[in-house]
Amino acid sequence: MKERTFRQDHLLGIEHLSVDDIETILETAEAFIEVSSRDVKKVPALKGKTVVNLFFENSTRTRSSFEIAAKRLSADLINFNSSVSSLKKGETLKDTVLTLEAMNPHIIVIRHSASGSPHYLTTFARSSIVNAGDGFHEHPTQALLDALTIQIGPPSLVPVEFEKLGATVSYDMRGGVKNADVVMMLRVQAERGASNYFPSIREYRNRFAISRELFALASKRAILMHPGPINRDVEIETSMADSEQSVILQQVTNGIAVRMAVLYLLKGEVHETLN
Amino acid sequence: MKERTFRQDHLLGIEHLSVDDIETILETAEAFIEVSSRDVKKVPALKGKTVVNLFFENSTRTRSSFEIAAKRLSADLINFNSSVSSLKKGETLKDTVLTLEAMNPHIIVIRHSASGSPHYLTTFARSSIVNAGDGFHEHPTQALLDALTIQIGPPSLVPVEFEKLGATVSYDMRGGVKNADVVMMLRVQAERGASNYFPSIREYRNRFAISRELFALASKRAILMHPGPINRDVEIETSMADSEQSVILQQVTNGIAVRMAVLYLLKGEVHETLN
Amino acid sequence: MKERTFRQDHLLGIEHLSVDDIETILETAEAFIEVSSRDVKKVPALKGKTVVNLFFENSTRTRSSFEIAAKRLSADLINFNSSVSSLKKGETLKDTVLTLEAMNPHIIVIRHSASGSPHYLTTFARSSIVNAGDGFHEHPTQALLDALTIQIGPPSLVPVEFEKLGATVSYDMRGGVKNADVVMMLRVQAERGASNYFPSIREYRNRFAISRELFALASKRAILMHPGPINRDVEIETSMADSEQSVILQQVTNGIAVRMAVLYLLKGEVHETLN
Repeated sequence: MKERTFRQDHLLGIEHLSVDDIETILETAEAFIEVSSRDVKKVPALKGKTVVNLFFENSTRTRSSFEIAAKRLSADLINFNSSVSSLKKGETLKDTVLTLEAMNPHIIVIRHSASGSPHYLTTFARSSIVNAGDGFHEHPTQALLDALTIQIGPPSLVPVEFEKLGATVSYDMRGGVKNADVVMMLRVQAERGASNYFPSIREYRNRFAISRELFALASKRAILMHPGPINRDVEIETSMADSEQSVILQQVTNGIAVRMAVLYLLKGEVHETLN
Repeated sequence: MKERTFRQDHLLGIEHLSVDDIETILETAEAFIEVSSRDVKKVPALKGKTVVNLFFENSTRTRSSFEIAAKRLSADLINFNSSVSSLKKGETLKDTVLTLEAMNPHIIVIRHSASGSPHYLTTFARSSIVNAGDGFHEHPTQALLDALTIQIGPPSLVPVEFEKLGATVSYDMRGGVKNADVVMMLRVQAERGASNYFPSIREYRNRFAISRELFALASKRAILMHPGPINRDVEIETSMADSEQSVILQQVTNGIAVRMAVLYLLKGEVHETLN
Repeated sequence: MKERTFRQDHLLGIEHLSVDDIETILETAEAFIEVSSRDVKKVPALKGKTVVNLFFENSTRTRSSFEIAAKRLSADLINFNSSVSSLKKGETLKDTVLTLEAMNPHIIVIRHSASGSPHYLTTFARSSIVNAGDGFHEHPTQALLDALTIQIGPPSLVPVEFEKLGATVSYDMRGGVKNADVVMMLRVQAERGASNYFPSIREYRNRFAISRELFALASKRAILMHPGPINRDVEIETSMADSEQSVILQQVTNGIAVRMAVLYLLKGEVHETLN
């Protein structure tokens, strides 16, 4: 592994990271993919360190991914269940976090529906803050695991040139998919009222679901991504979800590696490195 | 400990186990009873391995028993709380488990009300699946801890000859208990509507509860078992529940040992054995 | 550290502790404050020991504090979530605890709304029982962390002479605060119906909240304490809560140290001591 160039105290979002930062995270994550393929999937890099999962929204997948990542680094992991916490007793977010901080954790992983809440924490917190999703704003470890998945996908896609990333908006699925290297579907968040924006699931599926026929328009070695959990036969037809082009589960695996990398780069001991 | 003859990838139920398999589990469990009696109750047999508790029904006792068993083997234990999980977001059981699997756990302990759900998981899962109760169907670690409890009970009962096991149905409590070596009561599962099947708790107690007088009909060294939690003075009168013939708490202790044995036999390192 | 003089099997309350016991706990806690200031905040004193958090009331802060304390001592910590436990299935408190005990934990930390419930447990339990709050009765680790905070506060207050403690009741805030060395506010427990005892929050604040002006009546080096979670601008005005005289967060930090001390003194290995 080349020398660390990661100089961040927190991971709040992608937009403030340099290309070097991102490359360091992805290279470190690749080393942790190797660790996760071992029979003993554990390194002592965060031994004696405390990581707190402070989730104000249910997200079992993301929470568990951080929990496994922390434990594989030998950290102590505390799930601070906010739904039964002091917030119900009238405590402010700031006081909750200051209280947690007084317990001397090293890293606080926060998920909160309010955009910018992780940034707010850094104005007073001493721990490293990791944003595990702040509403409609950022979810940086998701973005990083997506990048890792794309990078280790078909060779023709490596390396992704992040600095040149741009987007073209298309309201026509066929036009959007045509010649694409990566097709990434997002979840219809029925629990956030998303289904009010279209007449019926059937209508949505007919117009937007990725079918084999639709995916055939993409480039020959294209990959299909989705952050999960998927709604089968809503966003993605089952045959495509389970196809070889689907890297949806690889994204989950990479999520552990990226989160291990982030926790390690923020608070790991350099001398207890990976080899 | 004699050489391991356990060759199962999963523990789904009792019916497919050979006598050798069962004896191996029980002998291994006996070794772990010794570990649990030590002051430092921990062995490194599953160090670096990840065990997931995937419970779709509340069963704090069984879940905690697996959690303690896993931790005493030095495994990392993740409680995946299904009630707040992606299933609520429309994800299928298969996708939930595939997602979990992509995090590379070694063992998934599943409790689900649908009969056969653990068997279904093995059709696509790479981890070892342990059935922690699939509705009215099987609950194999309960059966094994019962067997362990009977085996280490009064010497006259050792060894239990599993291959000859049969059952006689009796609707007469006195006839059923008479000369029995083991009296095992089950819980009236009021939360599953069981109380609709009889007129009142008082009526049930009068006809079926194990009293001192009733138990006196059993063989001289008989033991009284119950999987817990008990409803005092419904299935068992308090004086009998707390009597010397009751091995109800011994069953709980043996539950840890049996679960350690199962986790160890499925994924433990042979060279890091118990002595 | 001077030789241990702690000879208690349980920690049920403060009233039965000797001055020696209390001094031993506080001195041990001071040593653990040092451990918590290290980069690797972990000692092996409870390795292989199992600590159970048995909470019948929500108290995320206290539960997490015990969890962190146990993990920093290398214990295995099991959160036994009573709200989904067997109590709902009709099991008695005694049977729940006997069942837990059959899993061979070393320490059970219990929070229960019924006064005296931890004392009741000691009449049949073999584990060490730690009272983490029994309703309106005792919450000894809170008292001890308060004592620790006062002791390490301004030098003029050291040592607190516990044996001479007495109280003067005052219904006049100005009279109560005047010349005080320590001002300790308690929380208005709206969730226990406390707000029925006064006409409005505004009224309460006007009459009782600690303002800068009010606190100026206290002694020159006075400290302001509160067990948390605080209701800002109800019990304490924000400017005072965040002032240098406020030691509210220090209380949280000391809570970890005191709980480590209690767990260690009850079940720690003497030879694996702190240096």
